[in-house]
Amino acid sequence: MKAEILSIGTEILLGEIVDTNAAFIASRLPALGIDLYFKAVVGDNLDRLTETIGRARERSDLVICTGGLGPTEDDLTREAICAVLGEEPRVDADLERNLRAFFEGRGFKMPESNVKQSWLIPSARAIPNPRGTAPGWWAERDGKIIVAMPGPPTEMTRMWEKEVEPELRRRNPGSVLVTRTLKTAGVGEGTVDEMMSPMLKSTNPSIGIYARVDGVQVRLAAKAADEQAAWRLLRPAEEQARAILGAAVWGADDDTFESVVGDMMRQRGISLATMESCTGGLLASTITDVPGASGYFRGGLVSYRTEMKIAWGVRGDVIEQHGVISAECAREMARAARERLEASVGVGITGVAGPDEQEGKPAGTVHIAIDAMWAPPQSVSYTFPQGRAAVKRRAVTTALVLLRQSLLSHHGNGLV
Amino acid sequence: MKAEILSIGTEILLGEIVDTNAAFIASRLPALGIDLYFKAVVGDNLDRLTETIGRARERSDLVICTGGLGPTEDDLTREAICAVLGEEPRVDADLERNLRAFFEGRGFKMPESNVKQSWLIPSARAIPNPRGTAPGWWAERDGKIIVAMPGPPTEMTRMWEKEVEPELRRRNPGSVLVTRTLKTAGVGEGTVDEMMSPMLKSTNPSIGIYARVDGVQVRLAAKAADEQAAWRLLRPAEEQARAILGAAVWGADDDTFESVVGDMMRQRGISLATMESCTGGLLASTITDVPGASGYFRGGLVSYRTEMKIAWGVRGDVIEQHGVISAECAREMARAARERLEASVGVGITGVAGPDEQEGKPAGTVHIAIDAMWAPPQSVSYTFPQGRAAVKRRAVTTALVLLRQSLLSHHGNGLV
Repeated sequence: MKAEILSIGTEILLGEIVDTNAAFIASRLPALGIDLYFKAVVGDNLDRLTETIGRARERSDLVICTGGLGPTEDDLTREAICAVLGEEPRVDADLERNLRAFFEGRGFKMPESNVKQSWLIPSARAIPNPRGTAPGWWAERDGKIIVAMPGPPTEMTRMWEKEVEPELRRRNPGSVLVTRTLKTAGVGEGTVDEMMSPMLKSTNPSIGIYARVDGVQVRLAAKAADEQAAWRLLRPAEEQARAILGAAVWGADDDTFESVVGDMMRQRGISLATMESCTGGLLASTITDVPGASGYFRGGLVSYRTEMKIAWGVRGDVIEQHGVISAECAREMARAARERLEASVGVGITGVAGPDEQEGKPAGTVHIAIDAMWAPPQSVSYTFPQGRAAVKRRAVTTALVLLRQSLLSHHGNGLV
Repeated sequence: MKAEILSIGTEILLGEIVDTNAAFIASRLPALGIDLYFKAVVGDNLDRLTETIGRARERSDLVICTGGLGPTEDDLTREAICAVLGEEPRVDADLERNLRAFFEGRGFKMPESNVKQSWLIPSARAIPNPRGTAPGWWAERDGKIIVAMPGPPTEMTRMWEKEVEPELRRRNPGSVLVTRTLKTAGVGEGTVDEMMSPMLKSTNPSIGIYARVDGVQVRLAAKAADEQAAWRLLRPAEEQARAILGAAVWGADDDTFESVVGDMMRQRGISLATMESCTGGLLASTITDVPGASGYFRGGLVSYRTEMKIAWGVRGDVIEQHGVISAECAREMARAARERLEASVGVGITGVAGPDEQEGKPAGTVHIAIDAMWAPPQSVSYTFPQGRAAVKRRAVTTALVLLRQSLLSHHGNGLV
């Protein structure tokens, strides 16, 4: 089955909002055995939209559209599908009732422009959308399918996972692709390339090496008639790759540093506390992105001002002697967090997020410390020169890497 | 001048690397007076690439390609342009000399596969690329232009800024686009559409309405021969739109809730403290995304466990009576944060990030409270049903909206 993805909206075309939908959908197609041939972005223009959907439908079996299902005059996806199929829309009574109930339930009168969100055409059935007012369309005729989903990612992802993907899986049994991504830290792309060279000639599973913000990744992908056969191809290759890469592998697939570190703490009964200044709460927020973080995360302090650090147990003489932007202060913050919040390990981060310098230290200076009950205190210092948001993010990633290393030493072995 | 952007590469098509080039180029076209009609992504396949470049060249004046200029068999952009124009490539002696010198300068022998990076065709001239081995192509015939640039963003952006954009500016004098985006809160997309209906027929400035996570936006865009003339067109329309939308407008262009709220606190000498549980530090992190936040943000407490809330001043009897997931607890958290951190206003957030329920309350339940020295305490309660990350984000946005409302009442008027 050949597919194309169309992202619809002038604001996506002009780069004013980032199109995450197309990448999400693209990542889900291989496991369904669906080949993706094109991705395109079209603005809110009926002629161009109609032309683009029409041509996509000519050359592919499945056209997946996101966006353009809102209530305004700019939202033209339904109109374009009508034009492509030469069908007239009519208001569906059930859909209209649901739509009015949605507004009434929130205490609003429905603007009449919203009525077109209850349109249907003879070839289309509605795809439920409990997260918003716009149902999707599954428009099918002459063996060709057009799927239209709303643009907001929370609405689209639910609709894809609960409605569209299960239906496509039923339609399209046969050839599937399975993948395994091994995530490494502490080794460069060239080094991984050299280490993996005995395996790189393999075509099924195929092997790709990619540099990412959280380290170099090795992606194995196997294709077969069914999922079991694909995994039978992939498994031995994964074992071989893990043997080659050894301790450099810290996770796989959807693992993140925060989920891996969280699993280690849960398994070992370790509790965590944080005190951060330049990252402003991003470390705590990242740690608590993991469901179940309350099992090991005791709490976090965002000590954005010096007097707060002191009030929370950082020794004033250390600040006087070394300044707030210092490895010594980071260590004091880690210790104070661990003690004040009665945790088994504390993390402290201090630095200069920028854009201005502080204490004569340039923007991007960051000190990170770990104070664990099972090891001597440790700290690292970096300069990240990429701007405020990147400084915060890289400081948090580095803190999690350091925390993982400390947790590995907790039981004296290198196995996660 | 009509333009299209083509991003070339299977790894971009499959979403394995994020395509930042297309958004970058798209953002640069309006100021050149160039209209962007399509963006597309094509994999490394000669037939599809040739078809796509060919059709783009038929319907547009300028086709901007990135990627596919490397030395491997997968890099097919040059081959596709040759096929589209029906011209034969030949090795250009000067380019080949430069290429060999590039490798020799780094102590490498040039792999013979790289020779195709010194190809030219009669209609194409090379665009210099000091940051890599692949020169770009400027292929022009019959009044149509194809620009091909390398995929690595550092190479592409330099080539765009130093070579391509100046040439396009020379070719295309006289037409620029300026925009103003008004950001609203508290009104739905349909309502804004109805309010703005007297202006929606306008084509220059054109008016677009977009729903965003931080509210509905109205985007005005004016086109004229030069920037001054474009602003003269835009200004009266902006005034009219502001008059229609009134107090619903909270900011414009790059404003965020956190920057607007930060400006208000700085101007009024107000200091802020936070205590949050289900948002896990994201509120503090968002507030401190604004440079200069240390001027008004005293600090934040991430009280991820009940005992931490009590240790930081939340009354135990309130928790016993109402539970941790309650408006009463949120108010206690706001009050305790303000008092403990000696701030003039405190924000408290408690709730269930999910995926599991807590205290019998469903995932997505959130209580947000503001405790300001100048007003009685207030709180709001919501259920956000969109999953853990979205619950955190929407709770933070809502807290900032509520904080802004409270700050507006600080001086007793509705003007920011």
